[in-house]
Order: sequence, then C-alpha cells, then structure tokens
Amino acid sequence: MPNYERILLTGAAGRLGSVLRPGLAHLAKKIRLADREPLGDLKPNEEAAIFDLADMEATIEAAKDCDAIVHFGGAPHECVWETVLDSSIRGSYHIYEAARRHGVKRVIYASSVHAIGYHEVEAQIGVDAPPRPDSLYGVSKCFVESLSRLYWDKFGIETACLRIFSSFPEPADRRMLWSYLSFADCVRLVEAALTAPRVGHTISFGISDNKVKPVDNSGANHLGFTPLDSSEPAREGVEGRTPVPDPLRPSVRYLGGWFCELGHPDDKPAE
Amino acid sequence: MPNYERILLTGAAGRLGSVLRPGLAHLAKKIRLADREPLGDLKPNEEAAIFDLADMEATIEAAKDCDAIVHFGGAPHECVWETVLDSSIRGSYHIYEAARRHGVKRVIYASSVHAIGYHEVEAQIGVDAPPRPDSLYGVSKCFVESLSRLYWDKFGIETACLRIFSSFPEPADRRMLWSYLSFADCVRLVEAALTAPRVGHTISFGISDNKVKPVDNSGANHLGFTPLDSSEPAREGVEGRTPVPDPLRPSVRYLGGWFCELGHPDDKPAE
Amino acid sequence: MPNYERILLTGAAGRLGSVLRPGLAHLAKKIRLADREPLGDLKPNEEAAIFDLADMEATIEAAKDCDAIVHFGGAPHECVWETVLDSSIRGSYHIYEAARRHGVKRVIYASSVHAIGYHEVEAQIGVDAPPRPDSLYGVSKCFVESLSRLYWDKFGIETACLRIFSSFPEPADRRMLWSYLSFADCVRLVEAALTAPRVGHTISFGISDNKVKPVDNSGANHLGFTPLDSSEPAREGVEGRTPVPDPLRPSVRYLGGWFCELGHPDDKPAE
Amino acid sequence: MPNYERILLTGAAGRLGSVLRPGLAHLAKKIRLADREPLGDLKPNEEAAIFDLADMEATIEAAKDCDAIVHFGGAPHECVWETVLDSSIRGSYHIYEAARRHGVKRVIYASSVHAIGYHEVEAQIGVDAPPRPDSLYGVSKCFVESLSRLYWDKFGIETACLRIFSSFPEPADRRMLWSYLSFADCVRLVEAALTAPRVGHTISFGISDNKVKPVDNSGANHLGFTPLDSSEPAREGVEGRTPVPDPLRPSVRYLGGWFCELGHPDDKPAE
Amino acid sequence: MPNYERILLTGAAGRLGSVLRPGLAHLAKKIRLADREPLGDLKPNEEAAIFDLADMEATIEAAKDCDAIVHFGGAPHECVWETVLDSSIRGSYHIYEAARRHGVKRVIYASSVHAIGYHEVEAQIGVDAPPRPDSLYGVSKCFVESLSRLYWDKFGIETACLRIFSSFPEPADRRMLWSYLSFADCVRLVEAALTAPRVGHTISFGISDNKVKPVDNSGANHLGFTPLDSSEPAREGVEGRTPVPDPLRPSVRYLGGWFCELGHPDDKPAE
Amino acid sequence: MPNYERILLTGAAGRLGSVLRPGLAHLAKKIRLADREPLGDLKPNEEAAIFDLADMEATIEAAKDCDAIVHFGGAPHECVWETVLDSSIRGSYHIYEAARRHGVKRVIYASSVHAIGYHEVEAQIGVDAPPRPDSLYGVSKCFVESLSRLYWDKFGIETACLRIFSSFPEPADRRMLWSYLSFADCVRLVEAALTAPRVGHTISFGISDNKVKPVDNSGANHLGFTPLDSSEPAREGVEGRTPVPDPLRPSVRYLGGWFCELGHPDDKPAE
Repeated sequence: MPNYERILLTGAAGRLGSVLRPGLAHLAKKIRLADREPLGDLKPNEEAAIFDLADMEATIEAAKDCDAIVHFGGAPHECVWETVLDSSIRGSYHIYEAARRHGVKRVIYASSVHAIGYHEVEAQIGVDAPPRPDSLYGVSKCFVESLSRLYWDKFGIETACLRIFSSFPEPADRRMLWSYLSFADCVRLVEAALTAPRVGHTISFGISDNKVKPVDNSGANHLGFTPLDSSEPAREGVEGRTPVPDPLRPSVRYLGGWFCELGHPDDKPAE
Repeated sequence: MPNYERILLTGAAGRLGSVLRPGLAHLAKKIRLADREPLGDLKPNEEAAIFDLADMEATIEAAKDCDAIVHFGGAPHECVWETVLDSSIRGSYHIYEAARRHGVKRVIYASSVHAIGYHEVEAQIGVDAPPRPDSLYGVSKCFVESLSRLYWDKFGIETACLRIFSSFPEPADRRMLWSYLSFADCVRLVEAALTAPRVGHTISFGISDNKVKPVDNSGANHLGFTPLDSSEPAREGVEGRTPVPDPLRPSVRYLGGWFCELGHPDDKPAE
Repeated sequence: MPNYERILLTGAAGRLGSVLRPGLAHLAKKIRLADREPLGDLKPNEEAAIFDLADMEATIEAAKDCDAIVHFGGAPHECVWETVLDSSIRGSYHIYEAARRHGVKRVIYASSVHAIGYHEVEAQIGVDAPPRPDSLYGVSKCFVESLSRLYWDKFGIETACLRIFSSFPEPADRRMLWSYLSFADCVRLVEAALTAPRVGHTISFGISDNKVKPVDNSGANHLGFTPLDSSEPAREGVEGRTPVPDPLRPSVRYLGGWFCELGHPDDKPAE
Repeated sequence: MPNYERILLTGAAGRLGSVLRPGLAHLAKKIRLADREPLGDLKPNEEAAIFDLADMEATIEAAKDCDAIVHFGGAPHECVWETVLDSSIRGSYHIYEAARRHGVKRVIYASSVHAIGYHEVEAQIGVDAPPRPDSLYGVSKCFVESLSRLYWDKFGIETACLRIFSSFPEPADRRMLWSYLSFADCVRLVEAALTAPRVGHTISFGISDNKVKPVDNSGANHLGFTPLDSSEPAREGVEGRTPVPDPLRPSVRYLGGWFCELGHPDDKPAE
Repeated sequence: MPNYERILLTGAAGRLGSVLRPGLAHLAKKIRLADREPLGDLKPNEEAAIFDLADMEATIEAAKDCDAIVHFGGAPHECVWETVLDSSIRGSYHIYEAARRHGVKRVIYASSVHAIGYHEVEAQIGVDAPPRPDSLYGVSKCFVESLSRLYWDKFGIETACLRIFSSFPEPADRRMLWSYLSFADCVRLVEAALTAPRVGHTISFGISDNKVKPVDNSGANHLGFTPLDSSEPAREGVEGRTPVPDPLRPSVRYLGGWFCELGHPDDKPAE
Repeated sequence: MPNYERILLTGAAGRLGSVLRPGLAHLAKKIRLADREPLGDLKPNEEAAIFDLADMEATIEAAKDCDAIVHFGGAPHECVWETVLDSSIRGSYHIYEAARRHGVKRVIYASSVHAIGYHEVEAQIGVDAPPRPDSLYGVSKCFVESLSRLYWDKFGIETACLRIFSSFPEPADRRMLWSYLSFADCVRLVEAALTAPRVGHTISFGISDNKVKPVDNSGANHLGFTPLDSSEPAREGVEGRTPVPDPLRPSVRYLGGWFCELGHPDDKPAE
C-alpha cells in the first residue's frame, strides 16, 4: 500500500531524477514527472508535466492533487547568476508556493554539499553547522533551506533537505572516495525521507557508507536512512589512475572540493 | 562464574520482570524476586519476596544479602497521583534506602522515555538532555533519576537509569517502529548495565536497532549495550493495519508518543 | 498599574516570604499570604490563608481567584524524608494542581542551589546542566523543576524556577562571599520573573553580583534580572573571623557547600 | 584621521540610513549616499547616487572608488515576493558584485532579527544558531548572510551582518522593551563594525542594553560594540498604554514578534 | 602503487614498531627503520638507522629522502623525568625538526590514552577534550600533540596523533576488555592515517571494536579507520582469572587505568 | 591578615615580576623573590633567592617554607629551542617538583595567549579550547598547562594558568588595543587567583576591559577577576601613529598576533 496518492518529482529527466523515477514508483499510486526536457515513454503510474520552474503558474499547476513533492529540479551545478536565480531561487519559491496552495504536506529537497562546502573536512560538522556555501549554486541551496524552514515554521509544510554529496554512477576521482552517494543509496535516502513518520524540518547529509567519513549525519537519524553502498570497490581503479592529492589544496581541505577552486561564474562567458 | 551473589529484582511478576527473571539468572547465584503479586513456581536459584514497595520496612528487608538491585517495580504507566506517589516515588526511595543500609553497590533502574517525553523526535537528544516528562509517571521517573544521582554522589552507590522506550512482545503501532525495545534487547541492556566495569551514574536509552532512530545513545557507550533486534520484521504488518500518522500531532512530534496527548490522570476516575 | 489581580505567596511567614511580602506588594492588587504559621497584622492589600501544604484541598482552595503563585513554601533545608515528602513533594504537587484547576498562568518557584549542589564550582555550569542534588531537600527541588516542566509542556502554565543560593541578611561565611543573594536582589529576581513578558519554563540561578561567580546565568537573561548587591562589603568581616578554607573539602569544591558534607537525614533523630 | 576614503551607504534616505548619514561622517573622507529616493541637500563630504538596487550596472558603478559599503538598502519589512526578490535578493547580489569588482574589502550589512525570528525567546540563542526566518523578508536576510559568507570564504571580502532588532525613535510596544535598538546604538554598532580590526564574516545582534535580554551576542564581541542606551526610560509609558501580553502567543514566544503572526504576503494585494 | 617513496619508522624495534614494520611495507617503496636497538635482518625494502632520538643531528639525518614519518619511538611507559625529557620531549622535537628541514609533509604520531588519562570513563569524551595526562609519560604525549599542532599551523606539516589505548598481543586484564587495540587494528589505524586524503592536525583514539566503548572517536572519522577486532574472544579467559573490579578505584574510574594509581616516578629508583 | 605565610615569586626581576613584587605584598607575610638577575634593595617583607630555574636542586630549595608559588619565570618570548627547553620546560618541571616536595598547595602560572595563538579572533574561544600554540614559547606554555593539570589530578596541587595577552606599560600597537592587560589588572588577576576559595585547575585569560574583546573568559569567573582598566585612553595615540591593519594578515587574523608571522627561531642565530 503506497504512502502517497501522487508524488510530484521535479528534475525528472535529470541525472538523479532518472534514477528516482523508477526508484520511488512503489511509494505512490501516481508519480507526476516534471521537467522542461522530454521524459520519454511513460509507464502506467507516470504522468508528465513539461514546464520551466521559472514559470510560477505552471509550477503551481503541477502540484495539483499531489501530496508530496520531491524537488530535484533546478540548475545542477555552478552557473551564472541569472541561471541560478531563475532555476533555483525563483523556481524553488514557486515549488513552495505550489505546496502551500495545494496543501502538500511534505517536500523532499535536493540540497547539496555545496551549501556547506567551505567547512573543513576535519571539522566533522553536523547537520546544524552554519551555512558556508562554496558557489552561487551553493548559495541557492542555502536559500531553499531557509525558505523551507519558513514554510515549516509558519505553514506546517515538512521538508527534508538532503545535502547530496557526489551522486554519480561511480566514484570518478579521489574526493568521491569519501563523497560518493551511490544511485541506490540516493533512492534509499529519498525513500526514507518520504516514509519517516516525522520530518519537521530536517537537514541530512547524503553520502554512502564510504570508508573515509567527512561529516556527522547523526542529527538526521530519525529519517531512518542507512546507506548500504560504499566507494571501496572503486578505490583501486581511482587510485590507479589519479595522483595522490595535495592535502593543502582548497579542493582537498574543504568539503566542497573543486567548487572551492572555481572563480566567479559571471567572470566567464555564460553557459 | 556469576558476577553477583544475589540480585534483588523488583516488579518480578510484571511484563519486563517476567522476562528478566530467567534472562538474568546466569549473573547471580541467587535471584530474589520481589513483587506484590504471586510469582508462581520458583526455580532453585530463585527466592520470593512478596511485599508492597510502599512498605519501607519490608522493602529494606528485601535487600538483605543482595549485592545488586534491578528495580523494575512501581506503576508501569500513567496513574493517578496517589498511585504514582506510593508505588514509584515512595517505593523507589525505599529501594535506595535499602541499598544504602545493606551496602548494595549497584542499582539498575527502569526509567522511561516518558522522563524526556516532551523532547521532539528531530531534536535527536542525547542522554544528558534536560528532563521533560510527559506525565506524572514520567515525573516519577525524573524523581528517581535525581534521587539515584544523589545516592551516587553522596553514598557511592552506582545506578544505571535505563530509559526504556516501548518494550513489548512486538511492535504494536507505528510509533513502536522506532521506539521498540525487544524483550531480548531489554535483557541485553540490563545485563550490560550489571556487568559494565564502571557505571557511576549513567543514563541510557533502551531501544532496539530500529531503522528510524529518535535519540543519540552514544553517551552510554560504556555500558557495552548493543541491540541485536529491530522492528523491521514487524513493519509490513504494522503499516498494513494502521494509517499513516499525521506528523503534526503531539503523539508523533514528541518522543513520549500518546502520553503527550493524555489529559491529567486525576481528572479521570482512579484506575 | 499592577500586573496581577491577586498573587498567592506561599511560605509567607518564612525568611524569604517575609521579605517578599512587602517587596511584591506593588505588583498585584491583592497578595494572599499563605503559611501554616501566623502572619501578624495584615495590610489592606493582604489576605491570609493559614493551612498546611500537605492538605490538598486547602491548597487548591487558596489559589482561587489568583493569577500568579509565588511558591516559597515547604521545608527550607535538609530534613528527614517524611518531611521532605509531605511539605515539598506533596505540597508542591498540590500547588500545581491548584494552578491548573484555577487557571493560574504563571508560577514562581523557589528552587535552590541544592538541586545542582554536586556540580563543581570550576565547572561554571549553566542553567541547563543536569540535576545533581546534594540532599533530599535538593531532590525535592529537582522534583518540582520536572513537575513544573510537565505543567508547562502539557498544560501551558509558565514557571520560573529560581535556584536561590544563599539568601540571608548578610553573608555569614566564606562560601556566602560567592553564594550570597541579598534580600533586595531576591525581591528583584522574583519581580523580574513575575513581569518578564515570556517565561515559558525557565530555570535561573539566584545570586547577587558577587566578585567570585560560580555559575553562568546567561541562559535566563530573558527574565531581565540584574542583581545590584554584592557580598563585597561583608568580605573583610567574614575573612577576619573565619579561617581560609581548604579547597579540597567537598564543601568548597561543590556548589552545594556544606550540604555535600551532610550525612543522611534519616540517620539522625527527626527534627 | 578617518578610516576610509569613501563609504557607500545604501538606503541612505531610509529610516536608519538617515541616522547613519551624519553618524558615520567622521569615518570617511567622503560618504556616497545611495537611494532611489531623493536625498535632500548634500554636505561637503557627501555625494549622491540615485538608482535602484535592482539595476545591476548602476549598483556596480556606485561602488567605484569606495573602500567600504554600508548596505542598508532594500525592502525594510515584509513584502510580496517580487519586491523581496528585486530589492533584497537581486539588489544585494549586485552590491556584492560591486564590492568584488571594485575591490571593496569590507561590507556592513543590515540583516535582521527576522532571519532568526522563529527561535524562542527563552532559547537564548547565540549568533551561530541555525536560520529560522519568519517571513520572506527574513528569508532574504538569510540569503544575504550566506551570500556574504561566500564572498568572504572565496573572495576575501569581509562582512559584518548586523541583525537589527527594532530600531525606531523609541520603543513603541511591549516587545520593543527587549528588542529596542536606539538610533544612537545603531550608529555605534555600525561604527564598531567599520573600525574593528578583524571582522572576517561576523554575525552580530543589534540590540540596546535593555533589561530583558532575548539573545546572547557574545559571539560578536570582537566587533567592540557596547550599547549605551536602554528601553527602560520608555517602560512606564509603554506599559501604561498597552495591555500585558499573553505569553502563549507566537508574537511573544518567538524573537520575530508579530512577523510570526503574519500570513503570506502574496495572499494580500501587493503593496 | 605505494603512496610513499620512503617512510621513516621510529621505535621500529619496539612492541608496536615490530608490528608496523611488516604491516606498512606495502605503503612505501622503502621503509627506514629507526631504533637504538638492533633490528635483525633487513628485507629488501628495509633500511636501518640506528641512533638515539636524543641525538638531534642523527635524528634529522634519518629523515633525509623520506616523505612520511611514523613516530613510535621514545619511552613506552611511565619513566623518570630525565628519561621522559630526553626520549619523548627532546626526541620528538628532533623528529619535527627533521620533518621541517627535509620537507616531510605527514607525520603519524603514537600518542596515548595517557594524554587524557584523568577523564572519567562515563564522561564519553571526544577527541577535542582538554588534556588531562595521568603521568609524566602522558604529559610528554600532550607536549607532542601541541608541538605537532604548531608544525601544522605554522609550517604546514600534517600530523595524526593516535591515542593508542592498550595495544598488546591480547587483552591482559579487565580494563583491556574496553581499552584493547589489537595489533592488526593498530596497523589499520596507522595505514588509515597514512592514506587519508586530508589529515591536517587530527587527534584520534586507537581502540578496537570492543563491546564497552569508553570514548567517542567520531571526530576522527575522516581518517577512515574502522577497527575489525574486538576483545570479546578474550573475555571469558580474562574474567575467569581476574576478580570483578571495584568501580570506585581510580584505575577503574579513569581512562588511564592503573597509571592513575602510580606515584611520582622520581620517587622511585630510576628504571 | 594575609592569606599566605610565604609566597615564592619567580621571574621577580622581570617586567611583570617587578610589578607583582609590590602588588602582592599584602597577601603574604613574606615574599621570596626568585630570579637569576639581581633584585635590588629588599624590603623587610622580602627575601631574595638568586638561581637559575634550570637548576633543579636550587629551585626545589627555593620553595621551602612557602605555601604558594607565583611562577612568572622562564623565557618571556619566542626563543631558540634550547632556551625554551631549559628555562620554561625544565624550569617549570622543577617548580612543580618543588611544590610537591614542600607541600605547596597553590601555584599561579604565567601562561600566555601564545598557547592558543593560532585560534582566530572571530572564533571567540573559551578557556577550554584546544591548544594551538604559535611558537616554541607557546608550546612550552601548553606543556606547563598539562603538567600542572597532572599535579592537580594526581597530587592535589591547585594551579591557575593565567594566559596573559599583552601586559606592558601601555598599548604599543593596534593589536594591543584588544590584547592589552594593564599592569594593575595583571596584579588584580594574580591576586584573584591567590585568594579565590577554589581554583582546582583553572585556565583564565588575562586581558583588560578593552572595547574589542577577542575571547570569552566566563569559564574562569570563579577566580573573581574583574579588570578595571582599558586600552581606550591609548586608542587615539596608537591609531594616530600606526596604519590601519590588513585583516587578512595572520597577525590580525589570529590571537597570537605577530608571533604567527615569525619563522622558526632555530633558523636564526641564537639570542
């Protein structure tokens, strides 16, 4: 018996959205897949909603008849300001208004390590460490974390902000040996957040059970997330093809990795 | 070789006492079973002591020749004040006086989640969070926690206060999916507290290795308790026969569960 | 314009009650003075209520038409168990039931340093340090602190628990050079607790602005209490007639002072 | 000898800008006054820059030849989303880009109590408590706090975020008896932030030396701010003309006051 | 592919050095074995360096061409002051100067539980608890912990200080049932510290996965150390041949064990 | 009536020793002045003891008949290792052995900001922050702080470690505007430490009541030290003759000031 009638999944055509699309199927009678890109063939339990998150009306419309939103849409990495503003800041505001206006009671939000990317690895921060974004992308994640806190405190809409570290098919570099979140663990994390009896406003790190652990996620133990994967199988390959990192570089020192070595996105030609 | 000569077990005829009676047998040459209810047939290592904890003289007498007390007696749930006062407050004072007068050096006390029942689940409290009882029952647990602290600081009697969450044959509702303490884990917890090399005055949560974890028990790691059971096998059944809870209800928001929705016990006819 | 219609002051004939009686007069149209001892002549704004706190019915009756209770009654120092039980535990329960049944919304409670008497001076504890009572008297203070927490969390009755250190006409020994609370500061503290816009459930230390400061009261800054007195004027006299203390003695090491060197009160003839 | 060559002051025509305009005059050879409203006659040390913060080019231009920015511009209270977005989010981004592009090394930002408005008064939070905005206005303050953190961590631009509580000519209601920041103390606070030897990224509360203290500002002691004013002179007047507040109302319970009782601004006709 | 060109291992002939000698072989092309005692036959990947750590010139010479130092040399237990001073204080200074002068970027240091031996077991301290040495030996460990912190903060040389508890062939007494670090886990810990991407200055406890856990090592999770052994297999034997300990003895109360019951080493004839 | 029979003051001819010599006169019947430099004419209450702290026998002899030691001797700033070792490490060990062998019960030790010099100003550390020395001098201060902790925990000798910031005739540079400790406040601090009823092992910062406050000394409030001086009178002069500092320089960023910009002392010719 699924927990939900209809889940709205934004960013459904993206890297993680594509994984969540089948992964969350058993949790709702229907999944409404939202993206501005085409979504391919739909399964019987799927609905498509093609629109841009910057379009407030369309976004609000998309939440109709939903009782949960899994919000993975928006710019997936560092971008110029205008893109961050439209897709992540304005778009996420639209999502929360959609939730509020349609009485959606729980939102799962794809926050990111880049919201706290300037904390040091050896600081072993917990989930309530102050924001230290490493990019405009990270600032937009902080924005949604505080926006969703408002919607919880004032409007009673629960949110789990999942600070996803590096969720890729496999660990691609040495940093991912500790920052890796397998696709399967990513699904487990979202599922836990959707089914936990009480979320309130919870911030959780999203990381697999890797050997080196850079943060303390115990403050989110009530989500019931237990990662089952690890980067260890990839270690030999990664270490074989990449040099030992210099621990004094910002990209090794800080949680955010190479985002901490990026310049300002507006200094480069727009993407 | 058992650790103890003779353990006094109060509440021996109760739900948990009945489980501890055989479960602790190997730890002492003798177990003295105390209750005001009959105890059935005794095994060779067992002794019976039938009395009411409100009877100071009888309680003190019962601790004679004991070198440990496992105190699970007293009212097992919310009651009218007079019952709480007699069975839990006065009765527990009698137990500590019994320990002091007979030189008993370690007491294991059945405290309860209801001593901190008004903390929120997502607060992820540790064992040193301030008291927030959810009932007169919970207030009496706080009373014994502070009384036993006095007996440690002033008289050198060690106590482990075990804040038992929900110890039943199996998880009976959705809250128990995170608050469940299996009977076997309950025995493991008491055994750990009896055999740990150093207890001093320790407060520990008593909870199985459930998926959703509502508190942080790491402050009691020196007891050496590792739960081996989990509520997971019961999940499908529980979820199948109970509706999804409303996370905004006090009974879901707070650790104490439905105790937080009880009125005052003196407003109802005495039980 | 007074804040209250009628304040119930218990222990009104006691050392501190006698000081509060005139000190709080301007805060209410009427003050109802409660004690089991006679109260002398009454002023026009005063009413007398002579009863024993152990008498539940009388205690509840005494709160009728009151909108605040200043609860300074009960045993004022270490006593045998039966006295502590009757006057402080049962009596305080009666007070909270009186508040609940008559809709009194704020209680000011005379807690004590002896609720945390076994913390070390150099630990510089704050108001949320775990209970460590130094006496049965202290245990009863812990009891009321947790009882009042319940009445706040469940019934919405605010309480300020004032952990009074040493409130006497003047510092009488070397410990009081840091534990002294002048009578005038005691009145200021109770007044602050009665007039603060929001108390919720607050624990505050009660200590004058002495040179040596043994605790950190910043957690209660929302009460708006600022002590104006100090033990310094008495220093020369006290030091002249008392020897330098041995810092290794429990009475110097711990906040509770000589209470930490008392034996068990039930070992001595009842007072 | 002034510390700065030229300070850019945004919101110069606003309530606080009008106070800072003369108040900061001695700290720089020139003050460039920015607002979209007219600024009246200029003194010899003043320059005017009339533009809208939503205009990126104009905002950047305004910072030319400045070595400090005092950013008090943007919407001064709760507004509809589009206004918050343009004036506070986009406008503040423009300010930080202006600082970065012109090599301005220190920014003083008018944050607000409304960035942490949903913390309880009795929680006595410090400056590193997690964000809990009470309004879209508050969310925009959180946005700038995290944006400025990025500009410090990545670009080395110092910012002091001053969480101003209630800065008005005088305390206007009972809440302001604890939230009041006098105009003179506001100037002192900005001056301290401009002259402190090391700001890095500092968050400070802005509150006068009122009797009731709702937060702990010790984490910002390196700014060297000492308030000299207090709401006490206004107490009698305020209490005489306003009723005693109900401590259970959100507006009394939470730091943000009546902002916590506001509905959503987009539900009302735009201002 | 080994991580290092050449590791210098001091104390290579000692109890733990003898275990690390083969255990770390795969991590470097060469291991230079340093001791003042003979080292037996050398394997092809091994080099010998026989000298006394008190000899500064020889110590510095020994680090030539090394890119990591595993510093397990110096007095292995409580000694008279002159020995502690020469072998541990002066010797370790020489090691850090050797690292600095030869550009060695990472040092693994054998610190000890005796650096924090006077913390209580039930305090469940973390890795950043203040120093509380239990012996001159422990004081010398604190010295190197702070010296290495300087060499990190000022000279950029990383150090992992491993506070080894009881690393012996097997648990020899009841305390070791919780303090035991198996030889294999000791090798795992040093290996983790040598291969972790970022160490900075990290303090880690060194303890196997024993049932009773006396400390919280989560602050060092970025080392990636997971103990795989436990003292449990030895429990029955140890408990069978040793009496139940008195929990009030300093050797049971404190982490340092029987070191806390030692007198001053200079009061006894020099070893 | 003085608190002590005879105080041993080391470093009596030094900058601070010369101030303490008359400043502490009223606290003891005799003050024994120790230094290796001549001490000038002695007053009737003074005794001279000329020796080098590196001379163990002489140091121990000097403590005979003393009941307190004020240990301000040893190298007063960064030095080559051999000097630090002899005068501060070995010398201080001799002092503690002197205290132990002669039954001296309280030591006041001149520690330094340089024991925690690598903490950032805006971190607002308390007295229990982990050691982060900025120099070999600072490392030797950490050494004595841990050594004295041992002598307290094991031998019951109390120590107050006073981390003196910048105690000079007047503030000499901009950093001293926040790090200044006036000579009079230095005397007050030592006097407080000598007369506090309970010191145990206390670490306290030593700083006047300057406007900018870089640390939180509340953890030492039981010493009863209240600074009465401030650097403000010197501000105008200092700021007039020194440029505005760059907040990004280590000497401004860290508590230790220019010590953080020093190279290694052994790289320079010995002093």
